[in-house]
Amino acid sequence: MQNIFINSGKETEVLFDADFVLTDDNLFRIYGPMLPKGTVVMKSGEDNKNLRTVDFIVSQMLAKGVKRSGKVVAFGGGVVGDTLGFAASVYMRGVKWSFVPTSLLAMADSSIGGKTGVNVGFVKNAVGSFSMPDTYIETKYLRTLPSREYQSGMGEIVKTSLLNQDMYDFMQGEFDETEAIKRCVKIKSEIVNKDFMDSGARKALNMGHTVGHAIEMLTGLSHGQSVLIGLRLEMLMMRDYIEHDFFYEAQQYLSSYIKHRVSLRAEDVMRIASSDKKNGDGISVMYASRIGEVKEAVITQDEFLRLFKGAL
Amino acid sequence: MQNIFINSGKETEVLFDADFVLTDDNLFRIYGPMLPKGTVVMKSGEDNKNLRTVDFIVSQMLAKGVKRSGKVVAFGGGVVGDTLGFAASVYMRGVKWSFVPTSLLAMADSSIGGKTGVNVGFVKNAVGSFSMPDTYIETKYLRTLPSREYQSGMGEIVKTSLLNQDMYDFMQGEFDETEAIKRCVKIKSEIVNKDFMDSGARKALNMGHTVGHAIEMLTGLSHGQSVLIGLRLEMLMMRDYIEHDFFYEAQQYLSSYIKHRVSLRAEDVMRIASSDKKNGDGISVMYASRIGEVKEAVITQDEFLRLFKGAL
Repeated sequence: MQNIFINSGKETEVLFDADFVLTDDNLFRIYGPMLPKGTVVMKSGEDNKNLRTVDFIVSQMLAKGVKRSGKVVAFGGGVVGDTLGFAASVYMRGVKWSFVPTSLLAMADSSIGGKTGVNVGFVKNAVGSFSMPDTYIETKYLRTLPSREYQSGMGEIVKTSLLNQDMYDFMQGEFDETEAIKRCVKIKSEIVNKDFMDSGARKALNMGHTVGHAIEMLTGLSHGQSVLIGLRLEMLMMRDYIEHDFFYEAQQYLSSYIKHRVSLRAEDVMRIASSDKKNGDGISVMYASRIGEVKEAVITQDEFLRLFKGAL
Repeated sequence: MQNIFINSGKETEVLFDADFVLTDDNLFRIYGPMLPKGTVVMKSGEDNKNLRTVDFIVSQMLAKGVKRSGKVVAFGGGVVGDTLGFAASVYMRGVKWSFVPTSLLAMADSSIGGKTGVNVGFVKNAVGSFSMPDTYIETKYLRTLPSREYQSGMGEIVKTSLLNQDMYDFMQGEFDETEAIKRCVKIKSEIVNKDFMDSGARKALNMGHTVGHAIEMLTGLSHGQSVLIGLRLEMLMMRDYIEHDFFYEAQQYLSSYIKHRVSLRAEDVMRIASSDKKNGDGISVMYASRIGEVKEAVITQDEFLRLFKGAL
């Protein structure tokens, strides 16, 4: 079980009690004065989520004399969490780490479940580990989050709502940020506890991601927005297997959160989907046939092209 | 339990059945013609056991389309095994790997127990993981091993013999290489099975390593030779706590395998020992009080200096 605290106010203590804190340059510009002395700063952005940065972080941890029993903390969004988490999970074969997420995406999704990773070449999370942080969510940090990033977080929240009728109903009312995060944390934790090593139930969380990852790489849209568009397209691909009323309702629901139009070539999307680590010999598409009922279709490249072209 | 095969003749099948094989340039010069097409070659030597090489290996694995269910193999000594093993353990959050060790050190020690790792800066195995390979030991590969490397392997074999009376008695007779490897594999496996994550019993394997690592870094002697000298010095440091007869017998026994004289400054050794990841607040020295009975002394830096100076 992962330790997750929401608006507990404990994060300052955790940060100041740490042997090592990592953040990025954007956050340091805003929060530098409130972070402990000696906080290490990485360059922000997905491009810096790589093994060079891991080498840099580990060198800094060594220079600060962090021991195997040391305490290390990530203060930031998904990139800071993924990179510090991976570095911590391999530093001296593994030290404990904590995560103070500052983005909506990290609060509702990536700080939960203990997947870490960095990119190699153009392949996202080509290396990584399973390593559970203690997570301290404080929604006050959302006040400085750029709107592009906020919308990105909404993407994963909307995805999660397709996994659970209560959450879906809740999302039809007035939006309550803290409550939405709490519900996402609970739903994702339950799935992760069933399947930490990602060999079964956890696959449901990949809804929208096969096409979404490709969109993210091809268009540079944010992760969450890409997942939303991916969700919508994957449902169109699988519409014959989806409950009739739910299909139309969900298409409208997803569209209301999609802020961008994209133009895609089926062949480009297929090529990226084929190289995704989630996929073995066939391409895996996860879809909800109705709320809370997620199914997997494993299809050939030709089948993917045919269905994707039909969805466009 | 780790799968370990000794002179089973299965290693060719394993190599040709693999999706990815790594070796080093020295071995490739000798064994290139018998290795599968597409075998990837890293530069030999401890200097190349780093995250840059991991990045290179992972890029090659991606280029070859290795899946999460893929089979990867290390063909080489400790450096190839440690590096490939680490890369495999994080590639797509972990793929299975096999190890065909070609050095005596790797056969008797480093291919057993599933510790992987690479260096960061000057710190050995600053990052790493616990990831058990299937190991295929074939002693025929020792015929091409340089004598410096052979002597290095002998160091870990001699260390292991201090853990077990039968093995110690066996070592007093005529040396049988294959039998010595078999016994080391058995003794180390039993310890690792009790303590895979290195939090207790496994510490016994660190005998000689606190001082040995420092010697290796300061002198450039081989790992095994450094461990032998480290063993001898650590016993001298702890002589008040060691059974009288065993102490004298072991000093002679160790000396008969030591091929080098070294000149050391206590302060240099202490500084490196203090930064060792095995050590928390104090410096840990593991020593046999008699055969098969390993104890730990955790001492301050000052105490270390005093005892070490007394041992020189």
